[in-house]
Amino acid sequence: MRILGIDPGLQRTGYGVIDLAAGVGAPRLVEAGVIRTNRTDALADRLVEIHSGLAAVLDEFKVDVAAVETLYAHYKHPRTAILMGHARGVILAAAAEAGVRVESYGATKIKKSLVGSGHASKQQIQRAIQSAFHLQETPYPPDVADALAVALCHAHQAVRTVHTR
Amino acid sequence: MRILGIDPGLQRTGYGVIDLAAGVGAPRLVEAGVIRTNRTDALADRLVEIHSGLAAVLDEFKVDVAAVETLYAHYKHPRTAILMGHARGVILAAAAEAGVRVESYGATKIKKSLVGSGHASKQQIQRAIQSAFHLQETPYPPDVADALAVALCHAHQAVRTVHTR
Repeated sequence: MRILGIDPGLQRTGYGVIDLAAGVGAPRLVEAGVIRTNRTDALADRLVEIHSGLAAVLDEFKVDVAAVETLYAHYKHPRTAILMGHARGVILAAAAEAGVRVESYGATKIKKSLVGSGHASKQQIQRAIQSAFHLQETPYPPDVADALAVALCHAHQAVRTVHTR
Repeated sequence: MRILGIDPGLQRTGYGVIDLAAGVGAPRLVEAGVIRTNRTDALADRLVEIHSGLAAVLDEFKVDVAAVETLYAHYKHPRTAILMGHARGVILAAAAEAGVRVESYGATKIKKSLVGSGHASKQQIQRAIQSAFHLQETPYPPDVADALAVALCHAHQAVRTVHTR
C-alpha cells in the first residue's frame, strides 16, 4: 500500500509518500517535499498552486490513499484557521479528482500513534520520523516531518486493521 | 462588465451572473442558481462537485470578475467556519483556474451597499434583490439572493470606482 501524507498549509503544504509492504514491518520512504506559495500572490492564485502542485504529486506517485491532517477548531486566530481551510479544501479536492481515498487524522491522534503521547513536541515527532525512516538528519522544513507523521499514523492504523481482522 | 457573485457554502453554494453595461444604470440578471452537495457524501467528493459545478458556470458565462462573500471569523462553531473555508478554497481556485479575477466582500459591506445598513435582515436583502432585478418573487433558496447581493455589491463598487476616476 502506498500512502501520501499531507500537512496542509497556505504558505507550505508538506507531503510525504511511503510504501507499506504487506507483512513486512517497516514502511519505506519514497519521496517527501513541500509545496510553497508566495505570500504576496493573490489567495486564489496560491490555492491554484497548491491544487496543481498536489495534482502533480498524485499523478507521479500513484498512491492508494491520502492521509491528511485535520485543522484545529480552537486556533487563537480563527481567520488563520479559515484560511488554512481554504488550502485544505483544494488538497482534498485534488485527491478526490485523482480518485484517491482521503482519511483525516487529528494532531493528537498522530502524535499518540508515533510517540505514544498526544502532547509530544515538534522535536519528538521529528526525531520519531528520522528514526522510523533511518534518516541522517531531521526532515526540513518541519512540514515534511508532519506530512510523514500523518502518513505513518495511517500506516499504523492500516496494520492494526489488518491484524484485528 | 459581467460579474459572477458567489455565496460559498458546503451544502449549497449560491451563484448569480449579472451584466453591468457601461453608462447604463441598472444591472441585468443573466443567470442564478445553486450548486448543491449531498451531506452523506465524503467531504472530498463534495468539494470536487463544488469545484466542477463552478467551473461549468465559469465556462458557460465568461465572466470578467468573481465577487465572493468572505467568511465570518467569529462563527459560534469554528469547525463550521473551517469547513466553509474548504468550500471557499475550491471556489477561489476554480475562478483563478478560469483566469477570472476574484474580489472578496464581507457581509456587512454587502448589506450596507444594498440597503444602506450593515445590519439588514435576510428578508431586507431578498426584497432589495427582488426589486433591483424586477423579479416576481424573492429568489429561492436564499443562497441565490446572497450570491446576487455580492454581485450587486461589486457592481456598485465598480460604478463608484469609474465615477471617482
